Amino acid sequence: MPRLDSEKPLLIDLYELTMADAYLAEGMNEPAVFEFFVRKLPERRGFLLAAGLEQVIDYLASLRFDSEVLAWIAQSGRFSSRLVDYLADFRFTGHVDAVPEGTAFFAGEPILRLTAPMPQAQLVETRLMNLLNVETIIASKAARMVLAAPGKQLVDFGARRAHGAEAALLAARASYIAGFAGTATVLAAPRFGIPLFGTMAHSYIEAHEDEIAAFENFAHARPRGIVLLIDTYDTERAAKRLVDLAKRLAGAGIVIQAVRIDSGDLAAHARNVRAILDEGGLTEVTIFASGGIDEEDLAEFTRAGVPIAGYGIGTSLDVSSDAPALDCAYKLQEYAGIARRKRSEGKATYPGRKQVWRRRAADGVFAGDIIGLVDERQAGDELLKPAMRNGMACGRSSLADIRAHAQNELAHLPEPLRRREPFAYPVEVSQALKDLAAECDRRLGL
Amino acid sequence: MPRLDSEKPLLIDLYELTMADAYLAEGMNEPAVFEFFVRKLPERRGFLLAAGLEQVIDYLASLRFDSEVLAWIAQSGRFSSRLVDYLADFRFTGHVDAVPEGTAFFAGEPILRLTAPMPQAQLVETRLMNLLNVETIIASKAARMVLAAPGKQLVDFGARRAHGAEAALLAARASYIAGFAGTATVLAAPRFGIPLFGTMAHSYIEAHEDEIAAFENFAHARPRGIVLLIDTYDTERAAKRLVDLAKRLAGAGIVIQAVRIDSGDLAAHARNVRAILDEGGLTEVTIFASGGIDEEDLAEFTRAGVPIAGYGIGTSLDVSSDAPALDCAYKLQEYAGIARRKRSEGKATYPGRKQVWRRRAADGVFAGDIIGLVDERQAGDELLKPAMRNGMACGRSSLADIRAHAQNELAHLPEPLRRREPFAYPVEVSQALKDLAAECDRRLGL
Repeated sequence: MPRLDSEKPLLIDLYELTMADAYLAEGMNEPAVFEFFVRKLPERRGFLLAAGLEQVIDYLASLRFDSEVLAWIAQSGRFSSRLVDYLADFRFTGHVDAVPEGTAFFAGEPILRLTAPMPQAQLVETRLMNLLNVETIIASKAARMVLAAPGKQLVDFGARRAHGAEAALLAARASYIAGFAGTATVLAAPRFGIPLFGTMAHSYIEAHEDEIAAFENFAHARPRGIVLLIDTYDTERAAKRLVDLAKRLAGAGIVIQAVRIDSGDLAAHARNVRAILDEGGLTEVTIFASGGIDEEDLAEFTRAGVPIAGYGIGTSLDVSSDAPALDCAYKLQEYAGIARRKRSEGKATYPGRKQVWRRRAADGVFAGDIIGLVDERQAGDELLKPAMRNGMACGRSSLADIRAHAQNELAHLPEPLRRREPFAYPVEVSQALKDLAAECDRRLGL
Repeated sequence: MPRLDSEKPLLIDLYELTMADAYLAEGMNEPAVFEFFVRKLPERRGFLLAAGLEQVIDYLASLRFDSEVLAWIAQSGRFSSRLVDYLADFRFTGHVDAVPEGTAFFAGEPILRLTAPMPQAQLVETRLMNLLNVETIIASKAARMVLAAPGKQLVDFGARRAHGAEAALLAARASYIAGFAGTATVLAAPRFGIPLFGTMAHSYIEAHEDEIAAFENFAHARPRGIVLLIDTYDTERAAKRLVDLAKRLAGAGIVIQAVRIDSGDLAAHARNVRAILDEGGLTEVTIFASGGIDEEDLAEFTRAGVPIAGYGIGTSLDVSSDAPALDCAYKLQEYAGIARRKRSEGKATYPGRKQVWRRRAADGVFAGDIIGLVDERQAGDELLKPAMRNGMACGRSSLADIRAHAQNELAHLPEPLRRREPFAYPVEVSQALKDLAAECDRRLGL
């Protein structure tokens, strides 16, 4: 099957190569510790759901610079032959600790810590951030939709509005982790084993002289899992005509599974169509809706008991339209055994190798987190776990297990977060970490 | 060089395959005409800049279903062997007419018209939309930044926040088309010939015991195009210390080109730093700024004469954060020689094969567009031009030509649009097109 482009070695910011070159010139090959974290949650996010680690590990494990890439680097005239030689033998040999995919997390908490010789740790920055950012932001948006519509079948319909091919594929994965039932993006099945869903387009109806003829032809061509799109011309008229067709098809042993409504007042149409179908004896035919649906629609329809069983969700999911990027960072926390700290205004970081501990109430609900140094002992579960040692992955979770973990996380969020309400989840910074930050400042003369 | 994943045949919605299967079962292989257009401009966009056509043409010309993909389709149990046989021989044989990349356009105007046997025209929908959407939305955002900061050097810094690898690469291309000076994303140079820019990261400074030692080492390792990052600890202090260093380096023939500021009040720091550099005789050293910059910052800094020569722009550009998706559609307009029309509420389309004519004032400024049928004659220039015939591309514009065309378009926008102000650009629908829509409705009994 076609692979993700995760091995693309030149999907990298120029300065990663420039800095690697300078580090090599200076012999700065000591271990560096970088951490990935989100500085501040987007306005409409009370928590985030981690995703993308598997793609990061695959990228690190497979990163090579082949002869074609090396030739381009060499002839670009920007770098030393020392760098070209270094890249020719490049293998990522470092360690990664990370929170498992599907874990809920909060601002300031490192979700990935990478330890490797400095040039390696620097070279992987761009792609590592690129992958964690997109999958985490989509998983986090999907999680809100899952919370807004308990028991509903949510399906990713967004490939056409995702930002490129890879974003479409990773959106299918991230939303499935968060609890979506599946996706319309075919590649997600062979690549990740994600269930596929699909209906028909308006063009199919329009290409036929008659709407009912289109339904009938489709049903005969595709005698299982039939979902008919009924809003091309007049939704209620189509539903009424469908009742007779369904009876004819039933005679041929063909069962219509659902109808899809994609425009207009979805709640009103769904109620009308439900009544028409029920009156016609089609109580088993469910209603599936699509068309610009966002989490507030899901919450409102669910609260109002609108008879829609499932939703196809595109734009709002695939670009996380109300929060399309994370304020995320990958920052140096230690080099050559010495803790490091950035002090830029509004962007200061806590130095050192960190761990996050999560305390839980008796019923398992998250009670609060503490960010401290790895060698501290704190109450609660350690969130960051070994993911890679000496360039080798530490096992691999199945997507089913990741998805189950995410469901368990969502089930144990504090109630306001489950209701998608503003809530300041308590995240503390340990005294030892504060002391280390002060020590760094003293060393820097600040 | 690594290729875009544009050949990925399973980056497709399930229903495209399902419908193709149904069309084949029914023998519906007549020519279909689909058009791509944007229904409604995003709230903060007065115009859009078309981009992505080259990737669409490459995709159409190269689309094949190889044996591995065919095997997956066959074993999925979802499709007929007729479809598998059809895909085994698949070649796109249709025509494409489109507005050249870099052309400004408005809501409702088709920017691409595709004519091909129905199963072909349907199968390419997902990826065609996916490509045109992402490049157009980023080019359109970049165009606003270019208009907001005339004469400034704008550089794409957003790979880490772009949605996946392909989005990062295409963002570099789309922003360059719109007038950016270049990108930090290395792959954009070998793939598209786009100029590269890069500086250094805070991690590089932090890894050294002393900031000035970091600057000096970097300068020696990289004796051309040196841009030093001065906000890691204290921006003004770094600028002052830099003055002495620059003199030392000048003795060794090494010239510092610019300093970068990435945090705090960028305008205030830029003024302070400019004064420090000027006083130290470093009048040739320019100031480059980055860090959460959006078009309003560019406009404000430009208006206020802040001494910043260039900007690195990430998130706001690469995800078009204030409008991350287009309300775009790819709709059937004709099948088997008969005009077709979708009538869904709020989503009705004009039927038939369309052209867009643009009238200009004497000074070349756009005066108004008219959307009509291809066989009409209207005043103005025809915007859609042949891009593909019988599956073969009709030539190819260089990226330089596309970029020059975009600059020419931006120069001839009506003044309010150049100032990024709300403006209802006049777009008419021809009487012949309205008549055809009414005729379609009569035929459908609506």
